[in-house]
Amino acid sequence: MFRPTPDEQIIDWLDARTGALPGEDVAVPEACGRMLAGPVTAPADHPAVPVAAVDGYALASRATVGASDYNPLPFRVGNHAEPDVDGSAALPVNSGQAIPRGADTVMPLEETELRGDALDVYAPLASGANIVPAGREVRGGEVFLDTGRVLRAADLAMLIELGVSAVHVVCRPRVGIIVVRDDVPDAGGPMIRALVARDGGVGDDPVHPGRDGLAAALTRRQDHLLLMIGGTGPAPNDPAAGALEAAGELVFRGVAINPGETTTLGKVWETPVILLPGPPLAALFAYDVIAGRAVRRLAGRDPGLPYAARRAVLTRKIASGLGRLECCRVRVTGDRAEPLAVADNRTLSTVVRADGFVLVPAQSEGFAAGDEVPVYMYDRSGPAAG
Amino acid sequence: MFRPTPDEQIIDWLDARTGALPGEDVAVPEACGRMLAGPVTAPADHPAVPVAAVDGYALASRATVGASDYNPLPFRVGNHAEPDVDGSAALPVNSGQAIPRGADTVMPLEETELRGDALDVYAPLASGANIVPAGREVRGGEVFLDTGRVLRAADLAMLIELGVSAVHVVCRPRVGIIVVRDDVPDAGGPMIRALVARDGGVGDDPVHPGRDGLAAALTRRQDHLLLMIGGTGPAPNDPAAGALEAAGELVFRGVAINPGETTTLGKVWETPVILLPGPPLAALFAYDVIAGRAVRRLAGRDPGLPYAARRAVLTRKIASGLGRLECCRVRVTGDRAEPLAVADNRTLSTVVRADGFVLVPAQSEGFAAGDEVPVYMYDRSGPAAG
Repeated sequence: MFRPTPDEQIIDWLDARTGALPGEDVAVPEACGRMLAGPVTAPADHPAVPVAAVDGYALASRATVGASDYNPLPFRVGNHAEPDVDGSAALPVNSGQAIPRGADTVMPLEETELRGDALDVYAPLASGANIVPAGREVRGGEVFLDTGRVLRAADLAMLIELGVSAVHVVCRPRVGIIVVRDDVPDAGGPMIRALVARDGGVGDDPVHPGRDGLAAALTRRQDHLLLMIGGTGPAPNDPAAGALEAAGELVFRGVAINPGETTTLGKVWETPVILLPGPPLAALFAYDVIAGRAVRRLAGRDPGLPYAARRAVLTRKIASGLGRLECCRVRVTGDRAEPLAVADNRTLSTVVRADGFVLVPAQSEGFAAGDEVPVYMYDRSGPAAG
Repeated sequence: MFRPTPDEQIIDWLDARTGALPGEDVAVPEACGRMLAGPVTAPADHPAVPVAAVDGYALASRATVGASDYNPLPFRVGNHAEPDVDGSAALPVNSGQAIPRGADTVMPLEETELRGDALDVYAPLASGANIVPAGREVRGGEVFLDTGRVLRAADLAMLIELGVSAVHVVCRPRVGIIVVRDDVPDAGGPMIRALVARDGGVGDDPVHPGRDGLAAALTRRQDHLLLMIGGTGPAPNDPAAGALEAAGELVFRGVAINPGETTTLGKVWETPVILLPGPPLAALFAYDVIAGRAVRRLAGRDPGLPYAARRAVLTRKIASGLGRLECCRVRVTGDRAEPLAVADNRTLSTVVRADGFVLVPAQSEGFAAGDEVPVYMYDRSGPAAG
């Protein structure tokens, strides 16, 4: 028989076995959404030389003294084949281009008028105006992005501008997914695989080794974490726990969560193994609070639930048993949350119809109608690249 | 010369050319995060037959009358090879398994004790107790998931339980990315490609056809949307607009946004083409408010900015010019936002150092210190599967 272990004990045991994985080098263009395993130091000043801050004409500021709408001053339009600029020449530059030698300012296009090869300038400019000095954006040697940064799309552009071609990012945990039942279409495997991907892991296609192949499947794989789905019940014909005992070591038989209390933990060699219940609703909750935490920790992420939380007022009470962390699905309208079901590990459809869920802690008997509670929202969850 | 067009006119023109794409059939296990292009109707009742709501023993309720802790009633433990259940037999069933013929209730394990082949039952049960009737979760013929649903991991499990093997989802828009400059490492292409993926599109590897190949590159591709990066400036040597005119039709030269005002729109045959500025900061903003909107619409998504918005109080004023939608990066601490820079299309590093940005509408000259404003947060953006 199984004996549920309090959530905290399970978490302590699992956390001790799931530190963030070491890093790997990844080319910058492929690194969006990955987490830095170490700091990135700028290899050099950026910009490396003074550059134009606007589109316009680079010229010598001393030659613009006295220019105005009533007194346009003429310049000769030079080209980039003759980079030396004397007091009479203006070189067209785009924003971001290096300032040619001899120029110390950039005249914006709107202060000029082009007449054939000659340029009329309508305003004076101070030395240094509209120029970004070398090192203004980033100093060479500066820690520019720190350990733990989840790289955004714009970070890629900045890294490439800095001349960084590869970054050291936390490895994605490999998660083996083994499905106990092979006599029905597998509903749990694709769901768990999608959740593993959400949490930063890589789940292979779920394998279905059949009842007699379960223990062998547990020892045959080389993953950072093994998940087996189904067959965790107390009935004598439920094979998951036996397979774990045959392959390695069973440590916790049952977890004080509902649904999902038949969740079982152990290890094969030093690889943590989590046996998830077969009913998808129970598998989902056990994944989110136990197995997903392990995936998120291995991936270097925030181990907490990857759902955005918001506060809402309950329209009806939630009754819950003491001693178990319970999951109650709710439908949210405005700032009100209507409980759909609690303590029921069969009605997966409630998850599909719900907008989110409320957690009832083990030491609580529930909440009253009118209580304001945090709701974890199923949509818009998890970090995304940006 | 370019002539910025108000944002709204651009949006109207672009929206008229970017409706949601038609659907395609995708196998359910691969459909997480995809958007339904049509409703999913349940093919049959679920569960199809009455099933056990708990782990326990299926038996005839009439035979449990009078059972108590002081008066345990004995049952013979049957097996699934003999599904007929008479008043004296109890069949072990797991939660979710079909109820054997003859049984009308499921006795939970905790109300029983197994002694060899005999089972003692300690409680009476009413007919139908701990049984989920057929059709309780979902009715056959019911529209179970509606058009526009972004499929969550749990939806996959439910669809498979319902016997649905493929779903009709909105196609991912194919977005061609052409980079004008080929003389420097390309900072903009990988960023834009990552943003296209964030918004539900598929961007191929950016192509670098060289200055003379730009017009041909615009006509050679078969995409739902074409983005060209760089060369949009007003200087005569900036080639993007000329390439668009040679390949198709230039419609808007310049957009009233800052940074990004040299953004240019047009079409090649009926494919919308957007020329984004080369400086990555300007390309980022022009992508988010113009090009990304097109990607999100083609993908059937919410066309608005895919950043979570929150409110914060400005620590300093933001000054902004009239007539342009401006982007001011801010650093957020608690509920306070510190402006980093406005109206500057060079300092990409401000995006990297910022937590989010504030939009200053075209008809506004900015905000005062102490104003509460919406901040679009760079992190935790975009919908994710869950």
